[in-house]
Amino acid sequence: MKIARFSHTRPSEQTPVIDYGIVDDDALVVLAGDPLFSGFDTTGERVPLGQVGSLLAPVIPRSKVVAVGKNYREHAAEMGSEAPGEPLLFLKPNTSVIGLGDAILLPPQSQQVEYEGELAVVIGKIARHVPAEKAAEHIFGYTVANDVTARDLQKADGQWTRAKGFDTFCPLGPVIETELDPEAFLRTRVNGELKQEARVSEMVHDIPSIIAYASSVFTLLPGDVILTGTPAGVGPIVAGDTVEVEVEGVGSLVNPVRAPK
Amino acid sequence: MKIARFSHTRPSEQTPVIDYGIVDDDALVVLAGDPLFSGFDTTGERVPLGQVGSLLAPVIPRSKVVAVGKNYREHAAEMGSEAPGEPLLFLKPNTSVIGLGDAILLPPQSQQVEYEGELAVVIGKIARHVPAEKAAEHIFGYTVANDVTARDLQKADGQWTRAKGFDTFCPLGPVIETELDPEAFLRTRVNGELKQEARVSEMVHDIPSIIAYASSVFTLLPGDVILTGTPAGVGPIVAGDTVEVEVEGVGSLVNPVRAPK
Repeated sequence: MKIARFSHTRPSEQTPVIDYGIVDDDALVVLAGDPLFSGFDTTGERVPLGQVGSLLAPVIPRSKVVAVGKNYREHAAEMGSEAPGEPLLFLKPNTSVIGLGDAILLPPQSQQVEYEGELAVVIGKIARHVPAEKAAEHIFGYTVANDVTARDLQKADGQWTRAKGFDTFCPLGPVIETELDPEAFLRTRVNGELKQEARVSEMVHDIPSIIAYASSVFTLLPGDVILTGTPAGVGPIVAGDTVEVEVEGVGSLVNPVRAPK
Repeated sequence: MKIARFSHTRPSEQTPVIDYGIVDDDALVVLAGDPLFSGFDTTGERVPLGQVGSLLAPVIPRSKVVAVGKNYREHAAEMGSEAPGEPLLFLKPNTSVIGLGDAILLPPQSQQVEYEGELAVVIGKIARHVPAEKAAEHIFGYTVANDVTARDLQKADGQWTRAKGFDTFCPLGPVIETELDPEAFLRTRVNGELKQEARVSEMVHDIPSIIAYASSVFTLLPGDVILTGTPAGVGPIVAGDTVEVEVEGVGSLVNPVRAPK
C-alpha cells in the first residue's frame, strides 16, 4: 500500500487543502487523518491524480531524522575508511525535509554539494530498547531519501551536523510504501545518468539492527525517519541538475538543484 | 519575567493538568496558552507555589536542540584542542529533554558520563539568515541546560550524536527568564561541590553570532533551543550524584543521577 501526503483543490473550493491518501490506480483515496496517528479510515473521497496539486514530503518528523553513516562497504571505501562495527548515527533536523519536486538549494558556504541516495524507514510506533527481532512491529513503512551533503564542510567541521543539516538537504518521498522487497535495487541518477546502484540487502547493518541500536540510545517516535546509508557512487550536484533517487517498489524521488536567489 | 511550565491539581479536581505560568512572588499566574505561540494573556488564575506539582522542562523543542562545541577557551583546552574559528554545531534530539528534578539515567553502553553546564537560548521567532545585530529579536528567553555527554562514546564514535543524544541527556529548566545579565556567572556543582564557574560573557562566539551562524544553515523555529557551550571543569557523574547547573538570574537546574532499572 502506498500512502501520499498531497495538496489539492476541490472543484467547489478555491483554497488548496492538504490531505493524506492511499494510492489506488489513477486516484488518491482520502484518509480521515494522518495515518501514523489515526489509522486508515477513509473519507470516501477520491481525488483523481490529475487534480492533485503536488505530492508533499510524506512525513514531517516530529522529533528526529536519524541517519546511518558508512553503511555500504563500497561507499565506506570510497570515503577512505571501513564500515564501522556498529551503526554510526547522526541527526538531520526536520527543517531540512522537502518533498518530491522541491528544489535542493545550494548554500553559498559550500563549493561541493553531493547527493547520497538512500532507503528511508518511517517509524510507526514508539520504540525504546526494541530487540532486532521485534523491530518490524515499529515500522510504519518505507520511503526514498536523498541525504544531501556539503562534502567540503563535512570534512572541515568534523561533526557532520552543518554539512548535512542545511534547509532542503533531506528530500523525502514520493510516498510511503508499507511493504519492501528486501532485494530491491536502490539507484541514483543525475540528469538521467546512473550514478549509484546497489541492492538494499547490501547494507552492512540491516534495518532491524539499526532500529535495535538506535532505540537503545534514544526513544524513536512515530514519524521519526531513519536514513539507512548510501551505497558507492556519491558525487557532486550543481545548479540546474536534476537528481533522482529510486527504490524499486517504493518510488522515485526527483528534485531539481538550484542556486539560492 | 520568569515563565514556568508546570503540573498542578486544582482543589476541585483530581487529575493534574499542565499549564504555563508567570512566576509572581509565591505563585504562578496561569497563562492562556504556550506563550511561544499565544503570548502572555493570563487566565486570572493564581497557583500558589505550594500547590505546584512539579516544574516541567519549560520548552519541548518542536524541531531542534542546537548545541555549540568548544565555545569557552579553557574547556577547549581541557579537551585537548582550541576553540574553533566558527561555532561548531551539533544536534541533540528533543527526546533527550527532561526537566527540573528528573533523573539523568546512565546508559549501560557508557562507563564515563559527564555533566556540561550551559546557558541555553530559547528561540521565539522564526530565524533564517538573521544578522547578528538582529538576533535579539528572535530570542524568547533563556534557560539553563546540562549537555550530558557519554565522554567515552564521544571519543569512540567521532560523531557526537550517540554520546550526547541518550534519553534524559538534555535537562532544561527550571524556567525561562526573558532577561539575561550578560555578565552572569554560570556554575555547576556536583553534590554541592563547585566544579565549573565562568561568566557567560567568556563565550568565544557570543549569542548573536551563534544565532547568525546557525540561522545561515538551518531555519530556527519557535521553541528551538540553543545550548551555548560549557566552560572548563567538566567531569564525571555517577549514580547517586546530584548535579546542579546555575545561571545567575535565570535559575538553578538540579537533577539526580541514576543507574537504569
